[in-house]
Amino acid sequence: MVKPQAYVFDLDGVVYRGGHPIEGAVEKINSLISEGEKVIFLTNNSTLTRGQFAEKLKKVGVMTDAGMVINSTYASALHLTEVFGRPCCVYAVGECGLAQEFEKYGFEVIRHDARTGRADAVVVGLDREFTYEKLRCAHSHIAAGARFFATNADSTMPVEHGFVPGCGSIVASIRTASGIEPEVVGKPHDPMMRILIKEYNLQPEKCILVGDRLDTDIVAGNKFGFYTVLVLTGVSSREDVETGDIKPKRIIESLTEL
Amino acid sequence: MVKPQAYVFDLDGVVYRGGHPIEGAVEKINSLISEGEKVIFLTNNSTLTRGQFAEKLKKVGVMTDAGMVINSTYASALHLTEVFGRPCCVYAVGECGLAQEFEKYGFEVIRHDARTGRADAVVVGLDREFTYEKLRCAHSHIAAGARFFATNADSTMPVEHGFVPGCGSIVASIRTASGIEPEVVGKPHDPMMRILIKEYNLQPEKCILVGDRLDTDIVAGNKFGFYTVLVLTGVSSREDVETGDIKPKRIIESLTEL
Repeated sequence: MVKPQAYVFDLDGVVYRGGHPIEGAVEKINSLISEGEKVIFLTNNSTLTRGQFAEKLKKVGVMTDAGMVINSTYASALHLTEVFGRPCCVYAVGECGLAQEFEKYGFEVIRHDARTGRADAVVVGLDREFTYEKLRCAHSHIAAGARFFATNADSTMPVEHGFVPGCGSIVASIRTASGIEPEVVGKPHDPMMRILIKEYNLQPEKCILVGDRLDTDIVAGNKFGFYTVLVLTGVSSREDVETGDIKPKRIIESLTEL
Repeated sequence: MVKPQAYVFDLDGVVYRGGHPIEGAVEKINSLISEGEKVIFLTNNSTLTRGQFAEKLKKVGVMTDAGMVINSTYASALHLTEVFGRPCCVYAVGECGLAQEFEKYGFEVIRHDARTGRADAVVVGLDREFTYEKLRCAHSHIAAGARFFATNADSTMPVEHGFVPGCGSIVASIRTASGIEPEVVGKPHDPMMRILIKEYNLQPEKCILVGDRLDTDIVAGNKFGFYTVLVLTGVSSREDVETGDIKPKRIIESLTEL
């Protein structure tokens, strides 16, 4: 490939893991940025706003800003605006970043402690303060006619030592209670990928997408025609590629090989 | 049928709904008991002990005692004792009744706030105090090798006005996080039915099983050869019978028709 139009990097397991930078990743990304490459960050993580992700990236040393980050919460706010034709009223299961991002784009967010009002949609992100009472409220809004969206469906999330339950685990409880399948925004589903492409006017075949998960990053990248690179610093292994059906264009041990 | 060996009644949606007795049910059941019939109560509800269910039944006016109640928690304690050959160490996701029932039968229960020790099994019942932290702990015990059991898999539970998320919704979140299918004890699964039959030395073809749910009560009763009766005071409707594959032997509007 000649000079790519853009590099798209996943965050958890690619740039950092549990807040600690992955060796060599920050240096490589900064050198790309210094050389004038367009570097975009694309994460299913829904717990922070775009601005907060940019802050987190700066803290580990990456020279970027909010405008170069697409997280699943921002993508969800744009997707719902499109689906409903306007910002609507949502019952949000998620951490502070989710409600803040939605409010920034004009949505009315029914917070859990308020419990009043009729929601047009239930939006579910990772919520480490998730409770049965939130499950009950989400179920009740959906039963009353609210549409059910998930920022992403990742079953687990990598942390420094191992994995913790991800957004998909919370989504599963609400799906089981309601009997309704959620519309999922994040990778490998289409809405977030469409928003990425539109937002930066990308020609995917001229872009490199780097991720650590076959079933989200690489599936999504392949589907939309990106040159996909699996980096082995996160979830998926070389063996997963050999034994499975999902094939990246290239496998690298770390970003330094990019 | 000549005089049946026993009557087996489900509780929620059959005897009461949300703590309020269903019209005619208590009188009918008491008259059967007065006539010397053997009346057994069989519930997937895991939130109380057998003794507490007997108390609840007495409160709505049913003349019974703990020895005539099989709940999914008691069935789970017996089932796990059989599976492990002895009472073992469990991490319990559930309400007070679950831990109490297990401790009564000699199990060591790791309570959520203790968080130490290695569990042989994770047992999940309905827990209206469920939190992300409990999900994380259950996932972590299963990842460390604990076997995964569910008292039941009911997706919802009938309450006075409508439905709230049931045990199955909580189980779904832990299943998604861990990627492991639980072994389910309650109806329509076999362990609880086997315990019912063994405990009272029943010949199912001589017994009447009355329930309000096709997918739990009637499926289980039919499978084990009971004479199954669907009562329309709870979850399933006459239309559900007409449009579905699960057929009770008889349908009644209320227990007074029994």
